[in-house]
Amino acid sequence: MSTPAPRRGRPGYDLESLLTIAVKVFNERGYEATSMEELSRKLGITKSAIYHHVSSKDELLRLAMDRALDGLFTVAEEAMALDGRAIHRLEHLVRGSVAVLADRLPFVTLLLRVRGNTKVERAALARRKEFDRLVTDLVKQAEAEGDVRPDVDPAVTARLLFGLVNSLIEWYRPRGGTNPATLANAVCTIAFDGLRTS
Amino acid sequence: MSTPAPRRGRPGYDLESLLTIAVKVFNERGYEATSMEELSRKLGITKSAIYHHVSSKDELLRLAMDRALDGLFTVAEEAMALDGRAIHRLEHLVRGSVAVLADRLPFVTLLLRVRGNTKVERAALARRKEFDRLVTDLVKQAEAEGDVRPDVDPAVTARLLFGLVNSLIEWYRPRGGTNPATLANAVCTIAFDGLRTS
Repeated sequence: MSTPAPRRGRPGYDLESLLTIAVKVFNERGYEATSMEELSRKLGITKSAIYHHVSSKDELLRLAMDRALDGLFTVAEEAMALDGRAIHRLEHLVRGSVAVLADRLPFVTLLLRVRGNTKVERAALARRKEFDRLVTDLVKQAEAEGDVRPDVDPAVTARLLFGLVNSLIEWYRPRGGTNPATLANAVCTIAFDGLRTS
Repeated sequence: MSTPAPRRGRPGYDLESLLTIAVKVFNERGYEATSMEELSRKLGITKSAIYHHVSSKDELLRLAMDRALDGLFTVAEEAMALDGRAIHRLEHLVRGSVAVLADRLPFVTLLLRVRGNTKVERAALARRKEFDRLVTDLVKQAEAEGDVRPDVDPAVTARLLFGLVNSLIEWYRPRGGTNPATLANAVCTIAFDGLRTS
């Protein structure tokens, strides 16, 4: 044979599969507690094979969090482009965010757990804040249009709404669980119409 | 003076204040990442002074999580003792849980972050599961009584409801923020009646 077989049957990684496994390890062990040394052991490849794809552990974290943030901002842009009432844009945003969360669960989980200890984490937190502002603005608009109840502060409503969406990372497991569309319906039904029969 | 002054102005600790500070450190640095050595440095007392109150780091964790769990189960017992419809018991439980969360925020935060790595953590997770079952049963009862919408699975409704409550740990800060009663009203209004004006 002219080319050596991959070590112990483990294939080489492209950036995509490297990222997927790194995020899994970060979520299990914590980003800070995971060294590149341990990551290379988990992957069964050398550190230099990792550095072929990324310049640092920080870059892995940035790429992973961007995967979540880019998904959320794509949904936000779609929502903002919709005509009609703000409450429909808000509902589109919630529904789409649940879909992103279900589709990119480990990436969103990582994003929601960072605390701002590094420059990369602070940049991600700044994008999260931008997203939150966008939600609050939509809630305010929908309230001004008379579609959202005025007896709860819009900032509190926005936080509760995405608190509800984000809480899915604690229990939702796509495999074998509720399908994402059913889940998005459940979230929207409870958040917009309440669980009480009217 | 006949008695030595406390070291650098730090007073001795009773179990209560020891627990309060330990929980703060666990939440900031992670329970596993915190050694008794570091804890004693943070407290400005010797390790043996800590061991005067507790036998191990695990016992500190257990006491801290019990503080949260005991509060939640007290509320659950109160709710269960109420006459009338299940939806009122459920609303009492949500309102009371928000109050416990606001009052014992660091303890509940610690509880919600444990992953079951030790016997003490698994015991706490088992009590959390018992609490969750209780919520799901109430939702089912309320649905059977026609007060909760039947178009969302009761287990999903229960998870979303307490997902919403638990998400408060991510942003709610009692000092200078919304007061706990207003917060509990906002949570109940959105969860039970929805944010849409009907």
